[in-house]
Amino acid sequence: MLTPTDQSCLHQRRHQLGQQFEGQALLWSGVAPSRNFAANQFPFRASSHFLYLAGLPLQNAVIGLEAGQLTLFWDEPHPDTALWHGPSLSRAEIADQIGAETHLPLSAVSSWASHAATLPVPSSATHQQQIEWLGRPVPPIQGSQDQESNRDHHLANALIQLRLQQDEFALAQLRQAAEITVAAHLRGMRSTLNHTSEAAIRAEIESVMMAHQCPTAYASIVTVHGEVLHNDAYPHALAPGDLLLVDAGAETPLGWAADVTRTWPVSGQFSATQRDLYDLVLAAHDACIAAIQPGVEFRDLHLLAAQTIASGLVDIGILKGQPEALVERDAHALFFPHGIGHLLGLDVHDMEDLGDLAGYAPGRQRCDRRGLRYLRLDRPLRPQMLVTIEPGFYQIPALLQNPDLRQQYGDCVNWDRLAQFEDVRGIRIEDDVLVTPEGCQVLTSALPTQAPEVEAYVQGSTA
Amino acid sequence: MLTPTDQSCLHQRRHQLGQQFEGQALLWSGVAPSRNFAANQFPFRASSHFLYLAGLPLQNAVIGLEAGQLTLFWDEPHPDTALWHGPSLSRAEIADQIGAETHLPLSAVSSWASHAATLPVPSSATHQQQIEWLGRPVPPIQGSQDQESNRDHHLANALIQLRLQQDEFALAQLRQAAEITVAAHLRGMRSTLNHTSEAAIRAEIESVMMAHQCPTAYASIVTVHGEVLHNDAYPHALAPGDLLLVDAGAETPLGWAADVTRTWPVSGQFSATQRDLYDLVLAAHDACIAAIQPGVEFRDLHLLAAQTIASGLVDIGILKGQPEALVERDAHALFFPHGIGHLLGLDVHDMEDLGDLAGYAPGRQRCDRRGLRYLRLDRPLRPQMLVTIEPGFYQIPALLQNPDLRQQYGDCVNWDRLAQFEDVRGIRIEDDVLVTPEGCQVLTSALPTQAPEVEAYVQGSTA
Repeated sequence: MLTPTDQSCLHQRRHQLGQQFEGQALLWSGVAPSRNFAANQFPFRASSHFLYLAGLPLQNAVIGLEAGQLTLFWDEPHPDTALWHGPSLSRAEIADQIGAETHLPLSAVSSWASHAATLPVPSSATHQQQIEWLGRPVPPIQGSQDQESNRDHHLANALIQLRLQQDEFALAQLRQAAEITVAAHLRGMRSTLNHTSEAAIRAEIESVMMAHQCPTAYASIVTVHGEVLHNDAYPHALAPGDLLLVDAGAETPLGWAADVTRTWPVSGQFSATQRDLYDLVLAAHDACIAAIQPGVEFRDLHLLAAQTIASGLVDIGILKGQPEALVERDAHALFFPHGIGHLLGLDVHDMEDLGDLAGYAPGRQRCDRRGLRYLRLDRPLRPQMLVTIEPGFYQIPALLQNPDLRQQYGDCVNWDRLAQFEDVRGIRIEDDVLVTPEGCQVLTSALPTQAPEVEAYVQGSTA
Repeated sequence: MLTPTDQSCLHQRRHQLGQQFEGQALLWSGVAPSRNFAANQFPFRASSHFLYLAGLPLQNAVIGLEAGQLTLFWDEPHPDTALWHGPSLSRAEIADQIGAETHLPLSAVSSWASHAATLPVPSSATHQQQIEWLGRPVPPIQGSQDQESNRDHHLANALIQLRLQQDEFALAQLRQAAEITVAAHLRGMRSTLNHTSEAAIRAEIESVMMAHQCPTAYASIVTVHGEVLHNDAYPHALAPGDLLLVDAGAETPLGWAADVTRTWPVSGQFSATQRDLYDLVLAAHDACIAAIQPGVEFRDLHLLAAQTIASGLVDIGILKGQPEALVERDAHALFFPHGIGHLLGLDVHDMEDLGDLAGYAPGRQRCDRRGLRYLRLDRPLRPQMLVTIEPGFYQIPALLQNPDLRQQYGDCVNWDRLAQFEDVRGIRIEDDVLVTPEGCQVLTSALPTQAPEVEAYVQGSTA
């Protein structure tokens, strides 16, 4: 499953970790959680830090790292399980695949390094095991300077420095995830006229990922109610005037993610009001991508998107005033309340298990401002960083019907003009963008963003 | 979401539980487990006992039951979450939907009934909460007579008596799951000639379920290696001479399952050897279904299948000897090692969270015999019990290459004759069968079992 390039990248990751982190580290892969009874489980997903350094999604495994050397702790399945699950690779074969210098049974973990650093896994059964085997608390990493868990923080910081920039193994995987995701969205667009429900379009999209043996990297959003930002139910019928917002991404079998959003008209044709706001969101998207290069502050991209949206809404007549002043007052955030993007890698919000430690540069914290509080990334861009760019426009009742907000922004919103855009509940356009030494490369550029091209795909008139 | 019939069945279930179980019971619904970071979760599945009595899959809820009365403990989402997740029903609205007599915040659980019985949930985070809030261990129910957890055992036994027989609400759901599952398998058959991989067929099948807003009730098996009984990976290409074994079932949004297996030729035509063994498995399937009626011991159905298979293998020349004697020696289990079926309901192995307490009648235990040890159900059948009937024939290397077994059964297997059937790795035919007062009804009978009809669907010649 691993190519020679993959194996050499794994070796390099461990070597670099050994240079950035002194001492021993133990990382658990986790186990598949039970669904309704013990034997009926959700699909296994190994923890991302484990995947980053071990390469393969081995269930119930631990790796020990010290000075660039890898020890694999894993128990071969009991021979009786071959009846139910077929033959398994031996521990020695797996150790060879991933390039582990040593391999031992799981029972050897406790004695290997009782003072090792670790990072808590999401699987709560395995988290209990971490606490027991290490004989100490293993609290979540939050980015705070907790003295007791210093070694874990050091390990987290060392891993962040590695994982912020994607190597050749990662990029091959991320391109594969992007490619399959593009194909899945295209299937969604091309099949929309054949279906009458959100659920049916979701099925078309996810079936493309499934046919490539990829799970979804996160719960797909396939909705005519795009104003619900994390809408992961699919109960609605499609009506001719609806916009369908699709935020869906594949994850490769080795765990690498894509994260893509498109919004298209169910009928195959945007209304004039939909088109105005679609083009505005696209302008923000394009402006951000054009501005990406190493050294640029991601927060400035967010403010550029805010500025583009505020300015466009003034032109359309929905907002009143000077765009700069509107952004300073966070008036744009009535319609674009979330951040412009985030890190992407093994996790769709990469390293979000570490709180804001990965997303925010040292010394920086979330800002309380309405227009900035949901920004997940505030760092200068570096080459080989992969980020999403995902501006949006939404009419969210929880914001627009909020009496306090209506009063606070009463002078700068033209509510009558806004009412003319009632056929726009939510629009988002999101691509996966790799920072390069010269600027950037959009990994998902094969998926159309221009309104006429999107319409053509929905209408089925593009081969 | 709940019909008046559903609501009246829920009321009746609670009333009956109140008659069979004295005292108070608390049942937790659980929470969605995290996948790779806290906010990225697997789809939520409420615990089945909760679903049985509450009706709706409410996340992070607890119900209190006493003398047929229901108290709902649940916290409404924080208003800030409306931005991300949209508006939510109020606790009062949900209480009204499910017919709860009282509704309280979650913080009221601890004081409501500290001596209540409960059943451990699969979600390990919630299981910790059960232990903390009740201030006592909440061990898994295993069917053993553990003194300390007597009240939990009593509650389990009372619930088993209810859940063994499906009421009108359950049957409407189970029929819906069966219907969607039949459509999914038909899509799989009809699309096989268009595809070249297991993964692509799986995608076709699951997309039908997804389009109906149904998850899979368990990890689908879609494999050309049917000899691996619980094969839930999809890496293989389809070759013209392969048989494809598909074991896949939908679960309704309210949690009710189907569990169906068909085996079809990738080319659209069984070879002569495949057809011989297919017809043999089908004969066992049909014999069991014909024998089902109230009062019949499920174990006798298993032995009937074993007898049918042993007898057929003698006719074919793979086994040598008297069929009765072969079954007594468990020779049939070389090729049919698993049980003939199991309970089906909210869980695909219904109530398997209670160990064998539901599957085995009081006083009965698993038998050590090779041919019986994997039987999951050993009870006399009752009207409105839903069971699977799923005989199979497999060539499993872990069994057939086992030197001890080859010696033990050396005199009764014709290995040369068996070698002529090398194009049969695994065949299983499984239907969902409801026991009725007169006999039984196959809920999944719309899916063909006869070889010529299966071939016609694969060849696309059946409308």
